[in-house]
Amino acid sequence: MFSLTVCDHIMIAHSFRGEEFGPAQKLHGATFAVEAEFRAPKLDHAQLLVDIGLAKTELRRVLDTLDYSNLDEKPVFSGINTTTEYVAFHIHGLLAAACRDGRMGDGGRAVSGLKVLVRESPNAWAAYEGPVA
Amino acid sequence: MFSLTVCDHIMIAHSFRGEEFGPAQKLHGATFAVEAEFRAPKLDHAQLLVDIGLAKTELRRVLDTLDYSNLDEKPVFSGINTTTEYVAFHIHGLLAAACRDGRMGDGGRAVSGLKVLVRESPNAWAAYEGPVA
Amino acid sequence: MFSLTVCDHIMIAHSFRGEEFGPAQKLHGATFAVEAEFRAPKLDHAQLLVDIGLAKTELRRVLDTLDYSNLDEKPVFSGINTTTEYVAFHIHGLLAAACRDGRMGDGGRAVSGLKVLVRESPNAWAAYEGPVA
Amino acid sequence: MFSLTVCDHIMIAHSFRGEEFGPAQKLHGATFAVEAEFRAPKLDHAQLLVDIGLAKTELRRVLDTLDYSNLDEKPVFSGINTTTEYVAFHIHGLLAAACRDGRMGDGGRAVSGLKVLVRESPNAWAAYEGPVA
Amino acid sequence: MFSLTVCDHIMIAHSFRGEEFGPAQKLHGATFAVEAEFRAPKLDHAQLLVDIGLAKTELRRVLDTLDYSNLDEKPVFSGINTTTEYVAFHIHGLLAAACRDGRMGDGGRAVSGLKVLVRESPNAWAAYEGPVA
Amino acid sequence: MFSLTVCDHIMIAHSFRGEEFGPAQKLHGATFAVEAEFRAPKLDHAQLLVDIGLAKTELRRVLDTLDYSNLDEKPVFSGINTTTEYVAFHIHGLLAAACRDGRMGDGGRAVSGLKVLVRESPNAWAAYEGPVA
Repeated sequence: MFSLTVCDHIMIAHSFRGEEFGPAQKLHGATFAVEAEFRAPKLDHAQLLVDIGLAKTELRRVLDTLDYSNLDEKPVFSGINTTTEYVAFHIHGLLAAACRDGRMGDGGRAVSGLKVLVRESPNAWAAYEGPVA
Repeated sequence: MFSLTVCDHIMIAHSFRGEEFGPAQKLHGATFAVEAEFRAPKLDHAQLLVDIGLAKTELRRVLDTLDYSNLDEKPVFSGINTTTEYVAFHIHGLLAAACRDGRMGDGGRAVSGLKVLVRESPNAWAAYEGPVA
Repeated sequence: MFSLTVCDHIMIAHSFRGEEFGPAQKLHGATFAVEAEFRAPKLDHAQLLVDIGLAKTELRRVLDTLDYSNLDEKPVFSGINTTTEYVAFHIHGLLAAACRDGRMGDGGRAVSGLKVLVRESPNAWAAYEGPVA
Repeated sequence: MFSLTVCDHIMIAHSFRGEEFGPAQKLHGATFAVEAEFRAPKLDHAQLLVDIGLAKTELRRVLDTLDYSNLDEKPVFSGINTTTEYVAFHIHGLLAAACRDGRMGDGGRAVSGLKVLVRESPNAWAAYEGPVA
Repeated sequence: MFSLTVCDHIMIAHSFRGEEFGPAQKLHGATFAVEAEFRAPKLDHAQLLVDIGLAKTELRRVLDTLDYSNLDEKPVFSGINTTTEYVAFHIHGLLAAACRDGRMGDGGRAVSGLKVLVRESPNAWAAYEGPVA
Repeated sequence: MFSLTVCDHIMIAHSFRGEEFGPAQKLHGATFAVEAEFRAPKLDHAQLLVDIGLAKTELRRVLDTLDYSNLDEKPVFSGINTTTEYVAFHIHGLLAAACRDGRMGDGGRAVSGLKVLVRESPNAWAAYEGPVA
C-alpha cells in the first residue's frame, strides 16, 4: 500500500459542553496541525499517488472553511463538541468528497483510504481513518 | 476508525544481556518518549473517544511504575531484556488493563485497540499494538 | 553562559484589531507552545542553573493565568493585541517576577537573562528576551 | 504486532517528466529523511525484533546506492519519475531483500511487514508498506 | 529584544568543488528548510514586530528565486560553493534588502537584526545573522 | 556571524546527590540529544565554516567517551552531579579543545564561539556557550 501525506494548519476558537471537559468548557482555542494521508494500492503512469499540488490546494480549501473562526458559531457543528477527534472526522468527510468529486484528478478518484490526523498540542493528537468511497 | 494519542516520557537506567547488544551490555540509560494511541470505531455522545484528562492521568500512573529507576532491578523484568520493543509491550499491557478495569471511564471500556510507541532517540523507536480485551 | 529551558503549552481564544490582521480580526484561537529559557553565567554547588522542578511548576502557574481562556476578556490585555510577540513579552514579565521573588529558589535569583519563545504553528513563532532584574 | 523503526537520510538531485509536475520538471533536489519500520508478530529470545545495529547498517547500505547522486542518471530509474512515493517503494524492495537474504540475521528473516516512509519536506511525505516475503 | 520567525522551504540541486567535500562533489540536492528570524527592540502600536503575512510573502518571494533549480547554474553563485552556510548568508542579504526597501512595511524598516537558519537534514543546519541596515 | 550545527546522541545512566533532586536521586538514565553549534565571523575560501564531516566525526569521538556508560562511575565526574547543564559544559570543553588542537582543520581553528545544547526530554534541555580559545 502506498500513501502520500500533506500538512497544513488552522487556528480556531471553540468551547465544549459537558462536565467531563472541565476548564475546556470555557471559550478557548487551538492551533490544529492537520496531516492528510491519502492511500492507494498503486501509483499512476507518472509514479504519482495523487498530484501533491492538488492535494495541498484541496486541503487548504477544506481548512479555509474552518480557519480563523469560532467553531461554536458554525451551523455544521450545532449541538456537537468539536473535539480533536471530531474535527479530524469532519475534515475527513470533506477531503473524501473532494477525492470522489474529481477535484484531485484521476489520482484522487483512485484513492482507497484516507487518514486525517489533527495535532492539538505537542503531546496530544487525534485521527480518523476510513474509506473514501 | 478513530484514534486519540497522548504522550509523556520516562528516564530509566538498564543494561542488556547477550553479545548481540555490544556496548549496550553495559549499564546505560534512556529517555523513553511514550505515545499511547487509543482506537475505537466510534465516539461517545460528547464526541469523545476517551476523556483526554483520564488518558493522560493513566499514562502517567503507568509510567510512574518505571520512571527514575533501574529496570534491571525490577522483578517484573527478571530474566528479560528491556529493549524498547519490550518496554512498549509492557506499557501496553498496563494501559490495556486500565481500559478494561474502568479506570478510563466508559470511553476506556469502548477502546478496541491500543498502540504504544516508545522513542529511544531521535532516530529509533519501537511499538506494540494489539487489542485491549 | 549556561541556559536551561522548560516547555509547556496553553490553548486560548482571541481576536485582533486592525486591518493589517485580515481574517485574524475574527475571533479565533491558538495553541501556544511556550519555551522558557533561563540563563546564568554559572551553576550552583549542585551543578544546577535552576531547579527544573521549580521551573516547570512556575511556568505552569504562570500559564494557568491564560490557559483555556479568551484573552480578549482579560483586563490585563485591555486595548492590546495579544500577538504572539506580545504574549511572549507578557509571560516573560511574570516569569521574571517569579525569579526575583524567590519562587524559584536561589537559582532563580541568580538568573541573569530570560528568553520566552512562543510557537503559534509549525511555521511561525515569536520570542522576547531580556534581563530578569 | 511489534514494530521497530530506524531512520537515516539521503541528499539527491532529480527532475520529473510530465506537465503535472510544473516547476519540478526542472532539475532540483531533495533531502529524503527515511524511516524504515520493521514489523513482526513476536520478539526473539532476547526480546529483540531485529538487531537495531544491523537494521541501521542495512538501511545505510541501501541508502548509499542513492545518496549524493542525480537519480535521473541511475539506470534503475530509467523512464521512471522518482517521486517520493516511488523512492519509498524502491527502498522497500532493497530492504525487504536484505531481510530475506539473511543480512539482518534471524530477526530479519522473521520480519513479516515493512513500511518505508520518506519525508521530502516538513509538510509532505510518502510511504510504501508491504510484506517482506 | 523581540523576535518573530517564519519558515518555508526549497528543494534544490547543486554540487561542490574541492576535495574536502568528498562524495558531495557529485551533483546531488537538498531540501532546505528556512527559518527567518526578524528582531527588533520594540513592537509597533498594534503589538506587531513585522506583519507576519508580509514576512511570509517576502520569504516566499526570496525563496522562489532558488526553488526547483540547480544552484550550479545560477550566475549569482558563479565560482561559489552553495554550502548551507552560504545559502543562509545569501537569503539573509535578500531578506535584509526587503526590510530596507519597505517591502515589509514600517515594521520591516524597524527590524534591527535578522537571522536566517537553513536546515539541510534532521541533524545538520547552518545560519547567518547580522544587521539589516 | 555564521554558525554550523551538527547533532548526535548518547544513552547514559546516572544519579544525583541532593534532596532537591527528589526521585532523580535514584539511579536512572537519559538519552541526551546533543547539538553542537560552531560559530565564526566568516567562511573559508570554499564557503565552509568547518568541514561538516570532521565536525560530525569529532562530536562522535567526544560522545563516545560517555555513550553507553554510567556517568556515576566516571572519575572525571567525581563529586559532580551530571545535570544536563553540566553535561553540556563538559562536552563543550572537549569540543573546544578539538577545535584548538587542529582536529577540525583550519576551520576549527577559526571557530570563535561554540554552543553545546543537550536535550534530555521533549520538554527540557540545557546549553553552555562560550569561546573556544
